[in-house]
Amino acid sequence: MAADRSSVDFPVSVVLPAAGSGERMGLSTPKQFCSVLGRPLLYYTLQAFLSVGWVREIIVVVSQDWLQETSEILQHFPTPSRSKVTVVAGASTRHRSIWNGLKAVGTDTDVVVLHDAVRPLVEEDYLRRIVLAAEEHGAAGAVRPLISTVVSPTKTDGMLDHSLDRSQYQASEMPQAFRYPAIMEAYQKCSDHDLDFGTECLHLVQKYAGVSAKLLLGPSSLWKVTLRKDLYAIEGVLKEELWKNVVILSDCKLPLSQRLHKDIQEQLSSEVVLFNDQEQLATTCQTMATLIVTKSFPCDFEKTRDTVSKVLDGTNIGDRRVMVLLLCGETPALDTMPRLFNFTRDIAKETKKHSAVINSVYVDSQASSDAIDRAVAMVISLIRQRDPALSGQVFVAQ
Amino acid sequence: MAADRSSVDFPVSVVLPAAGSGERMGLSTPKQFCSVLGRPLLYYTLQAFLSVGWVREIIVVVSQDWLQETSEILQHFPTPSRSKVTVVAGASTRHRSIWNGLKAVGTDTDVVVLHDAVRPLVEEDYLRRIVLAAEEHGAAGAVRPLISTVVSPTKTDGMLDHSLDRSQYQASEMPQAFRYPAIMEAYQKCSDHDLDFGTECLHLVQKYAGVSAKLLLGPSSLWKVTLRKDLYAIEGVLKEELWKNVVILSDCKLPLSQRLHKDIQEQLSSEVVLFNDQEQLATTCQTMATLIVTKSFPCDFEKTRDTVSKVLDGTNIGDRRVMVLLLCGETPALDTMPRLFNFTRDIAKETKKHSAVINSVYVDSQASSDAIDRAVAMVISLIRQRDPALSGQVFVAQ
Repeated sequence: MAADRSSVDFPVSVVLPAAGSGERMGLSTPKQFCSVLGRPLLYYTLQAFLSVGWVREIIVVVSQDWLQETSEILQHFPTPSRSKVTVVAGASTRHRSIWNGLKAVGTDTDVVVLHDAVRPLVEEDYLRRIVLAAEEHGAAGAVRPLISTVVSPTKTDGMLDHSLDRSQYQASEMPQAFRYPAIMEAYQKCSDHDLDFGTECLHLVQKYAGVSAKLLLGPSSLWKVTLRKDLYAIEGVLKEELWKNVVILSDCKLPLSQRLHKDIQEQLSSEVVLFNDQEQLATTCQTMATLIVTKSFPCDFEKTRDTVSKVLDGTNIGDRRVMVLLLCGETPALDTMPRLFNFTRDIAKETKKHSAVINSVYVDSQASSDAIDRAVAMVISLIRQRDPALSGQVFVAQ
Repeated sequence: MAADRSSVDFPVSVVLPAAGSGERMGLSTPKQFCSVLGRPLLYYTLQAFLSVGWVREIIVVVSQDWLQETSEILQHFPTPSRSKVTVVAGASTRHRSIWNGLKAVGTDTDVVVLHDAVRPLVEEDYLRRIVLAAEEHGAAGAVRPLISTVVSPTKTDGMLDHSLDRSQYQASEMPQAFRYPAIMEAYQKCSDHDLDFGTECLHLVQKYAGVSAKLLLGPSSLWKVTLRKDLYAIEGVLKEELWKNVVILSDCKLPLSQRLHKDIQEQLSSEVVLFNDQEQLATTCQTMATLIVTKSFPCDFEKTRDTVSKVLDGTNIGDRRVMVLLLCGETPALDTMPRLFNFTRDIAKETKKHSAVINSVYVDSQASSDAIDRAVAMVISLIRQRDPALSGQVFVAQ
């Protein structure tokens, strides 16, 4: 399709309504501010839009009570990014909040994107298609196939009246995009009843601006964090992202490195790269979310510390948690272990500024194949969990 | 409502279609056989129905390739439970599979429940209401409010034709229940086209048996595992269940026990019970999914091992993973640590038959309040993750 190849060369603004109270979660914190991997959900949605170069500005609409928290989230982003974001106060209903957001949009904007703060997995390619379709048709919205059949109950006694033919209908999702004049016209003309109880923007634009939206089938990642259980889902998906690419720095010729390579690839479906040379690693890997360093033990602690520090300093680790595992092998007596404990704890402390999770796994390479299996299972488990509460700990596979 | 208080005093059978291929997951394993906390998803759905006393039989419909796996799942249940389950082979479409299942139902059954294998969170009270409504009206089905607005695209160019008024429609979910003769009549009369492309059973029963279903609003736990990310959600929910009740056995007067009590309650919303007496614990707690034992260190290892063994043997731990944490305090030299390592590893091995995850967390009680914070954070983290790969490990908060 031609639209896929075009680029966005006109001003685009994003309005993120994030003023909901999150009652459905059964939590006191609105879901967009619930913590996922140590950051509020809203952080990830902002991050996704800030990573799209052609998005000119982002208007976040939050309720009065959460203005402070929102400013704190913005501190996580570097100044040039942060300056793209405007925070405005929400109102009593979703539509009134969106309207507040729209009024803050720069008037020379061509296309306005509406998105939910609780859908943090935005894909740039799909966003571009939505924006280009809105530029062409006046409005565009994401749709997904219906998961459940839709039924209509009788009004009097809640009996099945009829069920809809699933093939004729779709679920309307976010993002949606509108030519700025069209969405402004719709909100200016619509009634108080629409602002209080209105269904959705596609409908308002159709009714009040005479614009029919183009519906584009979106990726499955567009789902919305609605219930408590969705927080587990989003955490799992974000962690998956972080172990998608694994780097192994094999600081000695351990067959264990090869074994790790194979098992991680199989069990985590990760892309695994194995380096034997630290210099090469530093020049090749600009970003790393998951790093494993294998080393013989007893090792030169000073040199090892140096290796880890150089790797952490020499690569751009982004602002997400990085995990460094030192997998040490080969037959020391248990009485050299206290040094390993102190060493791992100290490295974890030193590298805290990188918000890295650091662990050591010790396996006696003369040990049974059982012990090696357990060591590999522990490494994989630590990669999956990347749990800051366990940073600085040593794991022993005997 | 009267229906809520009635009991089910007629024969009820359950048909669980589980023959889907799970293409939507992007996984080679069908989602009902994907592993969650070490067991296939189907296990949990079976467990839920087997725990309902008035369910007489369960017919599981699986594809030919998964018959063996299904038999293995059944081995996890004791014989009286297992004998309630019949496994039959599925067919090429969902409706043909359900039809295979219905033909295996005992002919003296009054009400047949249809449920998805990929909705493991079945609540007995709600199931009872569905079954009683089916007995009364001939058919009943679960509904939930729509999460997304439903839209209808134009056929020619995928533009928005109209959006539905959300208040008029609901999402049809599972379970559904039918009087046995009604559902049999529907499947006998329906066309091949229905069996190949049919929408849903409520519709078939309406069309071919003239029965309109009662629609009952269900709990939010009825959601269906559809995409990969839902596996993270279900794992999170099942883990939550396991830490809902936490038992602390305080084997000495450690203020740490009180601190743990408070923090676990606050951070995990658990019910926490604190015992000082092992005998009392054994008689009071019939089932335990999360146990913490606090002890002074250095401790009498033999006595501690004895305590743990007695607790594990004396209480019914069910067939789910139990987590035992030994939280040890008070100033030893690091050179007594190797004994703690071996001790923890040995206990983990010995108690493997209980499928328990065993860890020790060591904190120096003379240490800074930082170290105590870290120890408590580690205990909470271990309770949340309950990771078998880390069983037998010692964690040190210095």
